[in-house]
Amino acid sequence: MDEKFMQLAIDMARMGGQKEQTPFGACIVKNNELICCVHNVVWATTDITAHAEVRAIREACNKLNTIDLSGCTIYSTCEPCPMCFSAIHWAKIGKIFFGAKIADAQGLDFNELTISNQQMKELGGSPVEIVADFMKKECQALFQEWDESGNKKVY
Amino acid sequence: MDEKFMQLAIDMARMGGQKEQTPFGACIVKNNELICCVHNVVWATTDITAHAEVRAIREACNKLNTIDLSGCTIYSTCEPCPMCFSAIHWAKIGKIFFGAKIADAQGLDFNELTISNQQMKELGGSPVEIVADFMKKECQALFQEWDESGNKKVY
Repeated sequence: MDEKFMQLAIDMARMGGQKEQTPFGACIVKNNELICCVHNVVWATTDITAHAEVRAIREACNKLNTIDLSGCTIYSTCEPCPMCFSAIHWAKIGKIFFGAKIADAQGLDFNELTISNQQMKELGGSPVEIVADFMKKECQALFQEWDESGNKKVY
Repeated sequence: MDEKFMQLAIDMARMGGQKEQTPFGACIVKNNELICCVHNVVWATTDITAHAEVRAIREACNKLNTIDLSGCTIYSTCEPCPMCFSAIHWAKIGKIFFGAKIADAQGLDFNELTISNQQMKELGGSPVEIVADFMKKECQALFQEWDESGNKKVY
């Protein structure tokens, strides 16, 4: 099941990349049921905070009509940046699966804050569970595909 | 001028607190001109990401029609949480003024990630300039006022 949800996030990220967005996708799942699946829309909405994970959290809060996403899991094609990690903490999401790493996004020239999820968790004191390198090759391939597509536009 | 903008953020935070929101306010300023001034609306909008600073950044991006807020300054009644700090970094805001500290918000029982802006800057490699403890007493007084108001509802 985890693979299925990550594959949905990958498909969504790819779709975003093809629509001149950046190739990041995320799904939020509760009790094995998909709550939402979105891609980054920073360029489309002129909103620097509209990363896939933040957008997924906003949508899940809206759909479930609560700011408390306890019991939910997030699947993200890339390690959440510190903004997204912190949003996940605030939302009380229990578990993060991610594929590529922040360093991979930085390799594409995104202006990343170079703090890993593990560092954020330890320094900040967050109970969130982290599963790194999940379907990593597929997620890294997505980045490479975008890098070579001619649609690449970073921030 | 800096005092004037922080006072606006304090007034906005107070107004939020009186409307059953949490008492956090933020202004974004460019060339000494106010771009926007907002308070936290997490409860009002059922959006756990709707902190004052994130909301101010979204509004400034929208008003200035760009995701690049270089040359802007943000005034926040409380030290931005790691989500908000990272959003400030992504937006390329040049300077942060803040009053109360994350520890003060934690003292009100907010579920804070205990990572200071200085730690985020150093670990992440952000060029943002930080002015801490700015009108700190006034910002702490705002927290105390809310703590005693009967409107207190944390997350």
